[in-house]
Amino acid sequence: MIRKITFVLSMTFVYSLNQHVFADNWTAKNSDPQRLGWMEGFPPPMEKRIMQPDSNFFSFPKMRWTVCHIRELLPTEQINRGLNPSAPFEYELDIDSINALSFRLMETDEVMTWKESLNANFTDGMLILHKGKVVYEYYNGCLTESGKHGAMSMTKSLTGLLAEILVVEGTLDDTALVSSIIPELSESAFGNATVRQVMDMTTGLNYSEDYSDPNADIWNYSAAASPWPKPAEYSGPNGYFEYLQTVKPKGSHGDAFNYMTINTDVLGWIISRLSGQEVTELLSERIWSKMGAELDAYMTVDGIGIPFAGGGLSAGLRDLGRIGQLMLNDGEINGKRLFDPVVVENIKKGANKAAFAKAGYTTLQGGSYKSMWWIFHNNNGAFAARGVHGQTIYIDPTADMVIVRFASFPFAKNADIDPSSLPAYQAVADYLMLKN
Amino acid sequence: MIRKITFVLSMTFVYSLNQHVFADNWTAKNSDPQRLGWMEGFPPPMEKRIMQPDSNFFSFPKMRWTVCHIRELLPTEQINRGLNPSAPFEYELDIDSINALSFRLMETDEVMTWKESLNANFTDGMLILHKGKVVYEYYNGCLTESGKHGAMSMTKSLTGLLAEILVVEGTLDDTALVSSIIPELSESAFGNATVRQVMDMTTGLNYSEDYSDPNADIWNYSAAASPWPKPAEYSGPNGYFEYLQTVKPKGSHGDAFNYMTINTDVLGWIISRLSGQEVTELLSERIWSKMGAELDAYMTVDGIGIPFAGGGLSAGLRDLGRIGQLMLNDGEINGKRLFDPVVVENIKKGANKAAFAKAGYTTLQGGSYKSMWWIFHNNNGAFAARGVHGQTIYIDPTADMVIVRFASFPFAKNADIDPSSLPAYQAVADYLMLKN
Repeated sequence: MIRKITFVLSMTFVYSLNQHVFADNWTAKNSDPQRLGWMEGFPPPMEKRIMQPDSNFFSFPKMRWTVCHIRELLPTEQINRGLNPSAPFEYELDIDSINALSFRLMETDEVMTWKESLNANFTDGMLILHKGKVVYEYYNGCLTESGKHGAMSMTKSLTGLLAEILVVEGTLDDTALVSSIIPELSESAFGNATVRQVMDMTTGLNYSEDYSDPNADIWNYSAAASPWPKPAEYSGPNGYFEYLQTVKPKGSHGDAFNYMTINTDVLGWIISRLSGQEVTELLSERIWSKMGAELDAYMTVDGIGIPFAGGGLSAGLRDLGRIGQLMLNDGEINGKRLFDPVVVENIKKGANKAAFAKAGYTTLQGGSYKSMWWIFHNNNGAFAARGVHGQTIYIDPTADMVIVRFASFPFAKNADIDPSSLPAYQAVADYLMLKN
Repeated sequence: MIRKITFVLSMTFVYSLNQHVFADNWTAKNSDPQRLGWMEGFPPPMEKRIMQPDSNFFSFPKMRWTVCHIRELLPTEQINRGLNPSAPFEYELDIDSINALSFRLMETDEVMTWKESLNANFTDGMLILHKGKVVYEYYNGCLTESGKHGAMSMTKSLTGLLAEILVVEGTLDDTALVSSIIPELSESAFGNATVRQVMDMTTGLNYSEDYSDPNADIWNYSAAASPWPKPAEYSGPNGYFEYLQTVKPKGSHGDAFNYMTINTDVLGWIISRLSGQEVTELLSERIWSKMGAELDAYMTVDGIGIPFAGGGLSAGLRDLGRIGQLMLNDGEINGKRLFDPVVVENIKKGANKAAFAKAGYTTLQGGSYKSMWWIFHNNNGAFAARGVHGQTIYIDPTADMVIVRFASFPFAKNADIDPSSLPAYQAVADYLMLKN
């Protein structure tokens, strides 16, 4: 039974578990959560439930409902926007022209229009800002303009942003060893890594996210992170912090980019230890309450109330547009400076491309990962927050453009999505640059 | 182990479990949650945790932290305020004069000042509106002006308000039998009760809330209502709706007021069946998005996503002030009519006093309970929403006054709190009436 409970807990908690076989004929239309009627009715009929007794919330197509309803399934902590009025965007919509743009898919060279790409990528929300104004806005599936959507691993970029702010302010020394800030991690693989290695994910960790392996570390991580009461027989770690102390090293730090969520959880711990605040509190104080946000955001928490710094965020589409605009404008928004421009400069510079290349991301060749942001090192100097199933905040300083996408693509790999999204973003950038 | 898990689940879910022996020398000051440092630190030290491994969230003094953090412990559903700007209150503060008011306690005749009553009643938030303007506002313990506090059974009054709105609009026939609307309840005690008997809690139910009895119905209710995964061995009902179908009759309907939360859960079911909306959705559509609310609110949910209509609400202090003002002004606020004035007229009229008297509420003699609101039938025509541990929205139409209090009084009985609060409210009413 422990195995079973642990598994169920895990299934609800890790955001990339769609290893289940399913028919390949799902489309954005036939998997639309309203069309499928998830959770409708009082009570919802058994086959329409996404909750008990089946807790496999993130299986496809249930996921297309779940991404907008995470707080209904798990305990969460608010990221408070405060009580100030929001700062609405100006609009200069250009929907039809953008819909008609076409581009060639990476790899296959197939031609696709922007409009076609929305459904091809199971897009739930799309916002394009040009020179700070909304030129394109779109909602589909479970999302509305006052709703919130799971940001998945885009959460990491916000945690990384907070860390980079603390580095520039001098509160956090990114050359320090993790063990000097979090002594509890001394015996773990993280102990002799530098903060910078954690921030840029070049740590060497013996950690497996192979979901098909019942002994993979991801299962222990999930069981530890579950916010639900542990079974009486459970003797493993409780919460992110206890789990992180058990991670063993593999190889050396600094050599190669290894994308592992547990780095961000360590970074969240560092931020909280130094600031005395939850990641949610610091995000509220520094960003959400000052950027003119329209909606509160929230993060999932573990069983001792620690926010999931590596993937727990849910937020509104336009509010992530504000995050993008803030990055585009080097820390300023609505005429207010929220942090030193050096913060964004540091991020945009990127990190070690050779270390990044070793990870073999075929759709991101020549890129790097800096402070939990993806740096494309392309002609436009674009960089992005990215999350599984197609989430992105894509910032193009040359085109003065921000794109935010929420999506619920059936597979958890962005490599499946990049071929029909990265060239699409470039096509919009090219169009907007020509326009002016 | 089932027993243990069930118990743990229960303890987190029922809001009135302070039957534990504790030293009588707790005061508002020495139990202040900030002073006690609950959940502080990364991670919080074991003895400062309110979460796992101890899940007894609502024991005192932990409760003084928990009442502001319920979403961090349980899945919840948002009551969306929408995207419109809020409608801030005007202020005409009169703090010192109100603090200095004195009154005599019920029963003992002891004299107490208003200011003293705040701590005597473990007050976390206090708002007084006079002629629609804020004359008094106070935050303490875990609460701030942008925070939310558990409304406990005040939730019932909002569910009752929705029902009364549907009655006046003709959507809900309060003379109908419950079984005619919810056939699933035909075999239960509720089947042959009228909607009105449910709304006024004069149903005859075989249901015990005796927490000292391990076989009391409240434990089965709590286990059913728990949002956490059911243990493999669990074979009881899942969620509010399944539980309600198991409730057996006792005595006859209509004879006596029997205050039982399960009536409100039935009413929530009726409202959702008829409207096709969650209680949270209807509250958002009809009330929260239209009253100029400053904050979203939320409700806890069971394991199939059904909001806890009988007690699950958390909200901001001033937003409950808006609810009070809306009731005071017979359905109007900020110059907008939200519902027919007959709704409030019906509620204020009250219900059968003789039926109410049978319940033996010594502090509420001569009162009645109508559509889940407490009607005092006093000279001022006051009526109120009330929740355990001292929550209230107290509406005095004669004094043109609304009082909202959030509190975390150590005991779950309002009979312990009324002697130092009801006369205090009257003293403020008397003062405000003289003032003009």
